[in-house]
Amino acid sequence: MSEPAATARQSAEPFPATPRVVSLGVGLFAEQLAAQGVPVIQVDWRPPAGGDPHLATLLDRLDARLGDRIDAANARALERLFAAQPRLVGIKYRHKVWPDLDRHVLLHAGPPITWERMCGPLRGAVVGALRYEGLAADEAAALALVESGRVRFAPNHDFATVGPMTGITSYSMPLFEVVDAAHGTRAYCAVNEGLGKVMRFGANDDSVIARLRWLEQVLAPTLRAVLAAGPPLDLRVLMAQALAMGDEMHQRNVAATSLLARALLPRLVRAAEPAGRVAEVADFLVSNDQFFLNLAMAAGKASLDAIRDIECCTLVAAMCRNGTDFAIRVSGLGDTWFTAPAEQPRGLYFAGYSEADANPDMGDSAIVECLGVGGFCMAAAPAVVRFVGAGSVERGAAITEEMAEITAGRSPHLLIPALGFAGAPSGIDVRKVVATGIRPLINTGIAHRQAGVGQVGAGVVRAPADCFRAALEAFVGRYLGEQE
Amino acid sequence: MSEPAATARQSAEPFPATPRVVSLGVGLFAEQLAAQGVPVIQVDWRPPAGGDPHLATLLDRLDARLGDRIDAANARALERLFAAQPRLVGIKYRHKVWPDLDRHVLLHAGPPITWERMCGPLRGAVVGALRYEGLAADEAAALALVESGRVRFAPNHDFATVGPMTGITSYSMPLFEVVDAAHGTRAYCAVNEGLGKVMRFGANDDSVIARLRWLEQVLAPTLRAVLAAGPPLDLRVLMAQALAMGDEMHQRNVAATSLLARALLPRLVRAAEPAGRVAEVADFLVSNDQFFLNLAMAAGKASLDAIRDIECCTLVAAMCRNGTDFAIRVSGLGDTWFTAPAEQPRGLYFAGYSEADANPDMGDSAIVECLGVGGFCMAAAPAVVRFVGAGSVERGAAITEEMAEITAGRSPHLLIPALGFAGAPSGIDVRKVVATGIRPLINTGIAHRQAGVGQVGAGVVRAPADCFRAALEAFVGRYLGEQE
Repeated sequence: MSEPAATARQSAEPFPATPRVVSLGVGLFAEQLAAQGVPVIQVDWRPPAGGDPHLATLLDRLDARLGDRIDAANARALERLFAAQPRLVGIKYRHKVWPDLDRHVLLHAGPPITWERMCGPLRGAVVGALRYEGLAADEAAALALVESGRVRFAPNHDFATVGPMTGITSYSMPLFEVVDAAHGTRAYCAVNEGLGKVMRFGANDDSVIARLRWLEQVLAPTLRAVLAAGPPLDLRVLMAQALAMGDEMHQRNVAATSLLARALLPRLVRAAEPAGRVAEVADFLVSNDQFFLNLAMAAGKASLDAIRDIECCTLVAAMCRNGTDFAIRVSGLGDTWFTAPAEQPRGLYFAGYSEADANPDMGDSAIVECLGVGGFCMAAAPAVVRFVGAGSVERGAAITEEMAEITAGRSPHLLIPALGFAGAPSGIDVRKVVATGIRPLINTGIAHRQAGVGQVGAGVVRAPADCFRAALEAFVGRYLGEQE
Repeated sequence: MSEPAATARQSAEPFPATPRVVSLGVGLFAEQLAAQGVPVIQVDWRPPAGGDPHLATLLDRLDARLGDRIDAANARALERLFAAQPRLVGIKYRHKVWPDLDRHVLLHAGPPITWERMCGPLRGAVVGALRYEGLAADEAAALALVESGRVRFAPNHDFATVGPMTGITSYSMPLFEVVDAAHGTRAYCAVNEGLGKVMRFGANDDSVIARLRWLEQVLAPTLRAVLAAGPPLDLRVLMAQALAMGDEMHQRNVAATSLLARALLPRLVRAAEPAGRVAEVADFLVSNDQFFLNLAMAAGKASLDAIRDIECCTLVAAMCRNGTDFAIRVSGLGDTWFTAPAEQPRGLYFAGYSEADANPDMGDSAIVECLGVGGFCMAAAPAVVRFVGAGSVERGAAITEEMAEITAGRSPHLLIPALGFAGAPSGIDVRKVVATGIRPLINTGIAHRQAGVGQVGAGVVRAPADCFRAALEAFVGRYLGEQE
């Protein structure tokens, strides 16, 4: 091991009685020294591109030959992202939105994946969805149907849709419809099922199926009428308010959900729907603090889709995971997924569970981090910093400032009061991720690795570096005509 | 002017080339030096008891002869304050709560005051209340009735009631009823009228009277049925949640109001009352971010009344103002009011208004600061720090820590995420206020000084020091038998 430490100031003596140390880079040295009572200043320095000369050369070449064009493209993308005005306009069944997708097509979270490579909870959700759709009477029948090859799988993202965790979106499910009023992009997300045994965490028993049926047959028609009874709800305004109320809109949506309930209250009391149904819907809405998550995701998808396919743009257009693979899309690289193995979240577990039970990272929910909230707004949500086991209030502020190092700008709408009303760090730049080695931080729920169990905890996870390295190489290949 | 500065470290030279200064006490020196580029450390030191040898002697005598008993009494009071569980149980007309008070009795904010000494907005509210109660057809008739001596005035506080700003509580008004489930104390507060022209800011035109009539005849019976349809609402839990969502429950109640709307949503959609009325009440509830303020005040009053009349206790049981006088009650000194002239709030004014238009500080709302929220929780509400013109986020944290210097403890329930989940500084100790010279800081609305105009701004104000000095002297007089 080479000598990591340097004395903090010039001294006639090579080793003063009490050494004073400045530690660069790897924090372990500083922690060890501090534990031994040696005064130490940790400087968070990293070698460019993680010390990888190949990547450093690619970044240099990009900068020299395309730097100005990329900067201009990214600025334009950021302008579109900040101009986006996602609004909740209604709720529609998937088969109405995508009539060409039949009952045997299941959309799922993350990049494309075959049945063989699916993780436990995703398989559990597939079995549940086939039962819910009436295509299989039980698990054995569902498995047989899958093995027969009749069931087809496709990513939500390819159908303007997002879904949390397993993210299964099936034929009969009602989806929130969100429209970006500035650019006309539309995005969809199913209704949050609540806590406990739910399909998004891979559970699939009768209670799960019954709840999905209720969402389809009771909640959807009621909320459709309620939403139609007034103007579209401005989700950007609602999210900005919630961000000032301690939500980061991934792990914590209590403020956003309460603001939504308040906004819909006058319409709910006036609803012409059967009174018993309205009451059931009201109960459901107020009993789930995470109800708004799926709306934040649809708002994120509608906003991010406004920056897809911008020539020469290095901003991330999507991050998602299917429980096996993590993947990103980059604006200037079209619909190509850059994938790497999904990592294990670190966090807090419910009683009786531990990291050994945890499935790798999953879900389309990381779209909210692409927008600049979720883990990127940890500074706004001290309660989440605690809940995900990430440490102190100061740690939350440090995470947000760290994410600002890999983003193109700060939102003029989504402001963080605790940081003097600084904006959410928005627009992840692949170049900056590779250059700094700082990987995007995502807040996430944790599913049990076995089908049928459900949620076992919540925590944080980093996006894998390999996605960004691969995207950078592809970007150089496409725009500089160099095959790596 | 004597030499205020001392060199910061020993030096062979009396005046080094660049002086380094530690400034004690008055901040002006430090600001002047800093402006001239001189490095300076400001130490916030004040002489004990503001340098008043008489008060310092009183504090010393109290400490020597009664210190332990006072500490024990204050600890017991704090325990009761923290054990309080204010719950919203219903809504009742004043004439049902206090049948002995006839229509000619008007309750008002602050300590007792005669018509002659009332400020403009309080007079305006009196005129409005007499019209509302049908005792006068117009302003001239109302003034004649007052001059005749038929109208009697009494403080809300003497009837377990609080009211914001002018705080007029008249015969026909519906009042929220809050019960402290731990100690059985009951407290009342009228319904918040919303913004614009409202009686609490001294407005009294036909629109004001019409709204009061609607509160009495539509909102009250509807909300009574809605509240009766479920268990009492736990206001302590609701306030704790709202505090973690950027409310300080005085100038900002958007989170608390949204949580309340969410909590009542299932009951409102089920209400058996006429549908049109329920819809009107829902509209009213969701359109006023300050709706919850009056519930926070009733919760404060119910909680603080649980620490009234504790022998040897130096904690403040109430702070209130009538627009002319500021007053406090101290637990160990019964119902005596210790008064001083109300001060002028400093803050931000609506377009077209300035400090010249402002009435001195008014209202019973400072009961929330006695509980430990409002100005005492400025750290929890960065948006309020801005709104009242008090400066930066850091300034908010500094204000809360300053208030912690004059309080007996920190709430185990009302936590401030931004301060690492430290509790709200609670239980103002008269001894500490006098000893430190730190005066309680109160967030407040600002009324126009003329009757009939209404709100012109919002800001902060300090409690006058003389109330606390007078209370300390009375305490010494009562417990040490010394007349000062």
